[in-house]
Amino acid sequence: MIVDCAVYENGKRRAGELSLDQVRGASRADDAFVWLGVAEPAAEEFEQIAHEFDLHELAVEDAIKAQQRPKVELFGDTLLIVVKTITHPRTSDSIEVGELLLFVHRDFIITVRHGDGELSSVRERVERRPDLLAHGTGVVLYAILDHVVDGYGDVAQRVDGEIQIVEREVFSAERTNPVEQIYKLEREVLDLYRAVSPLLEAVDEIGEGRFEAIPTELDDYFRDVHDHLQRVTGRVASFRELLDSALQANLTQVSVRQNEDMRKISAWVAIAAVPTMVAGIYGMNFDHMPELHWRYGYFTVVFLIAVVCLALYRRFKRVGWL
Amino acid sequence: MIVDCAVYENGKRRAGELSLDQVRGASRADDAFVWLGVAEPAAEEFEQIAHEFDLHELAVEDAIKAQQRPKVELFGDTLLIVVKTITHPRTSDSIEVGELLLFVHRDFIITVRHGDGELSSVRERVERRPDLLAHGTGVVLYAILDHVVDGYGDVAQRVDGEIQIVEREVFSAERTNPVEQIYKLEREVLDLYRAVSPLLEAVDEIGEGRFEAIPTELDDYFRDVHDHLQRVTGRVASFRELLDSALQANLTQVSVRQNEDMRKISAWVAIAAVPTMVAGIYGMNFDHMPELHWRYGYFTVVFLIAVVCLALYRRFKRVGWL
Amino acid sequence: MIVDCAVYENGKRRAGELSLDQVRGASRADDAFVWLGVAEPAAEEFEQIAHEFDLHELAVEDAIKAQQRPKVELFGDTLLIVVKTITHPRTSDSIEVGELLLFVHRDFIITVRHGDGELSSVRERVERRPDLLAHGTGVVLYAILDHVVDGYGDVAQRVDGEIQIVEREVFSAERTNPVEQIYKLEREVLDLYRAVSPLLEAVDEIGEGRFEAIPTELDDYFRDVHDHLQRVTGRVASFRELLDSALQANLTQVSVRQNEDMRKISAWVAIAAVPTMVAGIYGMNFDHMPELHWRYGYFTVVFLIAVVCLALYRRFKRVGWL
Amino acid sequence: MIVDCAVYENGKRRAGELSLDQVRGASRADDAFVWLGVAEPAAEEFEQIAHEFDLHELAVEDAIKAQQRPKVELFGDTLLIVVKTITHPRTSDSIEVGELLLFVHRDFIITVRHGDGELSSVRERVERRPDLLAHGTGVVLYAILDHVVDGYGDVAQRVDGEIQIVEREVFSAERTNPVEQIYKLEREVLDLYRAVSPLLEAVDEIGEGRFEAIPTELDDYFRDVHDHLQRVTGRVASFRELLDSALQANLTQVSVRQNEDMRKISAWVAIAAVPTMVAGIYGMNFDHMPELHWRYGYFTVVFLIAVVCLALYRRFKRVGWL
Amino acid sequence: MIVDCAVYENGKRRAGELSLDQVRGASRADDAFVWLGVAEPAAEEFEQIAHEFDLHELAVEDAIKAQQRPKVELFGDTLLIVVKTITHPRTSDSIEVGELLLFVHRDFIITVRHGDGELSSVRERVERRPDLLAHGTGVVLYAILDHVVDGYGDVAQRVDGEIQIVEREVFSAERTNPVEQIYKLEREVLDLYRAVSPLLEAVDEIGEGRFEAIPTELDDYFRDVHDHLQRVTGRVASFRELLDSALQANLTQVSVRQNEDMRKISAWVAIAAVPTMVAGIYGMNFDHMPELHWRYGYFTVVFLIAVVCLALYRRFKRVGWL
Repeated sequence: MIVDCAVYENGKRRAGELSLDQVRGASRADDAFVWLGVAEPAAEEFEQIAHEFDLHELAVEDAIKAQQRPKVELFGDTLLIVVKTITHPRTSDSIEVGELLLFVHRDFIITVRHGDGELSSVRERVERRPDLLAHGTGVVLYAILDHVVDGYGDVAQRVDGEIQIVEREVFSAERTNPVEQIYKLEREVLDLYRAVSPLLEAVDEIGEGRFEAIPTELDDYFRDVHDHLQRVTGRVASFRELLDSALQANLTQVSVRQNEDMRKISAWVAIAAVPTMVAGIYGMNFDHMPELHWRYGYFTVVFLIAVVCLALYRRFKRVGWL
Repeated sequence: MIVDCAVYENGKRRAGELSLDQVRGASRADDAFVWLGVAEPAAEEFEQIAHEFDLHELAVEDAIKAQQRPKVELFGDTLLIVVKTITHPRTSDSIEVGELLLFVHRDFIITVRHGDGELSSVRERVERRPDLLAHGTGVVLYAILDHVVDGYGDVAQRVDGEIQIVEREVFSAERTNPVEQIYKLEREVLDLYRAVSPLLEAVDEIGEGRFEAIPTELDDYFRDVHDHLQRVTGRVASFRELLDSALQANLTQVSVRQNEDMRKISAWVAIAAVPTMVAGIYGMNFDHMPELHWRYGYFTVVFLIAVVCLALYRRFKRVGWL
Repeated sequence: MIVDCAVYENGKRRAGELSLDQVRGASRADDAFVWLGVAEPAAEEFEQIAHEFDLHELAVEDAIKAQQRPKVELFGDTLLIVVKTITHPRTSDSIEVGELLLFVHRDFIITVRHGDGELSSVRERVERRPDLLAHGTGVVLYAILDHVVDGYGDVAQRVDGEIQIVEREVFSAERTNPVEQIYKLEREVLDLYRAVSPLLEAVDEIGEGRFEAIPTELDDYFRDVHDHLQRVTGRVASFRELLDSALQANLTQVSVRQNEDMRKISAWVAIAAVPTMVAGIYGMNFDHMPELHWRYGYFTVVFLIAVVCLALYRRFKRVGWL
Repeated sequence: MIVDCAVYENGKRRAGELSLDQVRGASRADDAFVWLGVAEPAAEEFEQIAHEFDLHELAVEDAIKAQQRPKVELFGDTLLIVVKTITHPRTSDSIEVGELLLFVHRDFIITVRHGDGELSSVRERVERRPDLLAHGTGVVLYAILDHVVDGYGDVAQRVDGEIQIVEREVFSAERTNPVEQIYKLEREVLDLYRAVSPLLEAVDEIGEGRFEAIPTELDDYFRDVHDHLQRVTGRVASFRELLDSALQANLTQVSVRQNEDMRKISAWVAIAAVPTMVAGIYGMNFDHMPELHWRYGYFTVVFLIAVVCLALYRRFKRVGWL
Repeated sequence: MIVDCAVYENGKRRAGELSLDQVRGASRADDAFVWLGVAEPAAEEFEQIAHEFDLHELAVEDAIKAQQRPKVELFGDTLLIVVKTITHPRTSDSIEVGELLLFVHRDFIITVRHGDGELSSVRERVERRPDLLAHGTGVVLYAILDHVVDGYGDVAQRVDGEIQIVEREVFSAERTNPVEQIYKLEREVLDLYRAVSPLLEAVDEIGEGRFEAIPTELDDYFRDVHDHLQRVTGRVASFRELLDSALQANLTQVSVRQNEDMRKISAWVAIAAVPTMVAGIYGMNFDHMPELHWRYGYFTVVFLIAVVCLALYRRFKRVGWL
């Protein structure tokens, strides 16, 4: 599905709707380029676009199947950049991974979106800066990457928050067992890592000015994106270490609590053993048991039992078993 | 055992059966090549082939023993590529690793198969594209690698599914202990890793156009295979991390359940301790125990015992021990 | 907020207050440079400075947001160095991470501070050495980096001390469970690592004389800083290993103590079982139980019970269960 | 001790015994070389050899002390190759590590053996191929390395078998605790790794034709050895991962079995608590307990106790506690 | 404190005591050099030496503070090599880390020692070989490094022995818990690693003949030291793995023993439950309990109890719970 299709001339959007071949023609002019936005295209639909813009057969297959890892690759004059979009919808409790394929050429940029990863906000922001847009398709690529990487940062921020919640749970007195949340976070962090770490290399290559389609005056901008990516990668790497340790610490806490429970139980068992034992003794049927005939024998014994139980209770309280 | 032996001229299969030396002769023509498919050859059988096609002594030894790691190696003009085939038969609950040795020369491609790894489907698909086949043996190599790597992807997909099943078991309320499945998956993932990761390097070398026998116009295709391999490698690496964490999480779950059981048991023990203790006291033989002579002493005591037990039961229920 | 702003001519500070544009003018002279110290600048404030000193748009964004990872980057003639400052205030029980951005040019050095990381002491120390200051802004950069890295060393020292305290707790007889402290230390060590390790690379680049703005006669000094950084990195890496092992060792200790408790409890239960069992037997109502009619039957039995209990007690004591 | 000393001329062994200096003289002829086999030489003995063949002082020290790590090093015209031999004698339950030092020169090859690592079988096999031997000392080196690396493969195979035995034990129903075997295997695998992994690098250097003493026409052969080494290294690396996981899985199994035991015990305790509790109640001495005076009260109660115990037993059986 | 100060001319020590400036003068002659040994110098003392021999300001700071990591660095014509000395005094149960700073110049070598690390034995050994000493200061450097690295080897040997002791304890039947020793060994191994691993790089640089102050004819010697270092590094790396596994195996053993204890305790509890239960039943006060009136009822019941208890005891013995 074609989401938006526009020709930019000297950084300004040309008014009106254009057909696909009009657009292709217009893009050939100097100082003009096309930005074609496509979302989850059907095979035939995209093949038409591919034919119009002369995209490589393998790149087309990638665009339709959308199961690529992040990369940058040059097919003839056209650069194919694959990035993963990661969002963490407020309404959901897990992250969602989408895919964005960007075909970048001096004359055009085609953005193919699978899953989440709305680009209209990027387009709006970019259109407000005709001075930048005049530099061509590279600026659009930068704006998109910047937007996607900002998204990673947001997700990393949110995961960080969740890790802190889980940490508090691990060490709280409330005896929760957040092992499932820790594991779920590990999965998310792995997804994040798999999206971020191959992109690092790809953006590095772009920032080194290795591709003709990207003007070198944008190198600083791509290096800036690279920097942000490195920050996210660093955070994600430390998330993995933290979650590993949290898993281990949680196991320790579980063991400690088990021990606490065991001691508490045992303390009560010990206290209950006293009356049972004493009562057993005075339940014996010997002919000569003088205490049995004392006037206040019974009350004395019950009183003694109570005293001993209380003493035990206090003692267990003091050593922290109860 | 020779499975299939065909001469392709300008991309089209020459009709009729051919003997081994006819085939060799025909392959020498320009625009013609031979694809010889062999399965688990006996030593003498393969030595004859090796003699006809002038294969290196060491390569022949490899082809018969079939215990190689994935690699690409140049012996004179002939490239030897070793790949592992991995299948996960629907009827079996573990993966099966086979081996494929490919001798690639401008004039011929010899495929030696050990274990699973049927190539007839590849041959059919390739024969339907004479335009591609006209590029020579490199196309066949690409088609086979593409097929094998797709197989890895399928197995990875299935392993992913099994990991998710195991995860659900780990965190389910049903108290299963899937430690053996986790371990079995780790073994499979290691096998997958050992098949995939050395191949990555080998395909990279091919994709960089380092070998004369592979025409450079196929570089994009081999890079595409390389990309898919990288995807699988990335997934397999994350499988390893997940399974490590699942093992640890499972241990935690086992401990938590042990604690739950212990508390449940202890709660019942505590409840049972009450009547035993009280009954013990009224079983004492003191002369003066006024309660014993009350009219409804017995009923009162039994009633009290029931009340206390019920109160304990409720309390344990409330704090989650029962 | 501008903290301090001074012009240095031939290594000596020019007296009197100067406005921003006077300063910029003065810095253009040979043998003179400006050191402008800024703390947590507001956006407009810093944009004015950026305009005066012609700083790159992206660098300005970094300076205001202050969420960078340590790095060195060249924008035109101006070097941007980002470092994290780490302090461990005596009054706090956790480390604090600040950020320092240094814009270094032959003519000026602008230091932007976020969070902790007072530089006035560095300025004082440097101003006492006009011979060094005459070498220009590179000396100031060196002095600041040396100061920051010394700070890392101090924090590493303190963390080392805390690890030793935690170790003693793990192996002490006092049955503490320092798992939360271990985890907290792991977090701190990770923060330290993320501050130190990217800086290593950055300082290495400076020490190799790759940047024009830094005179090569200072290379030895930057290599010295690099050396200190490597020391800290090495220590931090070993902290991580130690804490990992401490976590595991602590879990073992927790298990061992659980076992000790279990044995202690069981020993008491066994001792209490003796009187209950014996008393039960003599509480039976058989008509013919000769012991019941012995004159000293009761006393004998109570005495025997006491003897057996004492024997058990001693035995448990000897095997270490009590 | 000199084990065997022979001159080969044009690939054929010259008949008769030769003294050390005759041998050295003969080796100087074109198309002739000496293979001197030495086992655990005494210091003086080897110094004489070293003097005759002009070996480097440091190399001699290595040859006598035999505590080297695998390596290849060039001293003048003579190559020193150190390899570890690893055997797993059928009669022993652990692997044995020996050392082999090879001095390789165009004119001679001296093999110094420490510990196990018989080379006579290699010599026999090589002498049967005079065509190969005519290539000189490099062929002998190849044959020895091939033999040693085959030995690694055999040991790896055996270790693999032992790991599978241990795995079965971990997951068997027989409640064995193979932790000591797992640990022993880890030690062996580490020894294997330390023998194999540095050799990889050394053989790689030889296979790249970097040394004059090794004719380049043997490069394919050394690359083949390198390949086999890589296979072993890959296996050994996966052994380490497997054993790590087996250790963890075993701990889980131990915990699970502990829980099973605890539940079984608790079930019996619960069953035993019923008669004790009921009997206690009817052991009370109240004046008015109507059941006591029923004709079949006793039988009814005993019957009820039996019924309740049986019901509990069935229930525990059903939920898997018994 | 100056420990020893000597001029060597053509490899022979010049007789008599010399003042610092005489020494410096003498060292300038061809074929002569000075070896100045200093131990834990005071700041002023060393500054004088530094002035005499023209040492770099930063190197001097290092020499006095002595908190460097192992490295090699060139300051002008003088090489500064920092190494850690590691000793394991027979009387102590932990290793001790000292530091050695070596200033090496064609004319002089200054050795600064902090902590343990006596060099007089090296000096004696070297002085016995005037032929070697005639090569200059490089020989002294080699002798010292060789000595230090031999020390590492000795410590590694001793640590290996301690690991074997700990292993035996882990798997012994004596129920010791060597977790603290394992942890202590991990700390020592980390210290060893931090001393050895950076030195590897430094010695490699020296052995590659990168420094003018070291004559290239000594390259073989430094490569030999490098080799020994690699051996130690390899061992230390495997120590870390072993200790990790030992920690885990120990935890398993602790759990297994806990289970054994639990089963033993439970078996006794089960045995004790029998008399209690039976006695309870015959302690009931029903009017009609025929067994109570049997002549040998009491003896029969006691006998039956004994038989059942014995049967249980045997059974528990057989299944290994007792």
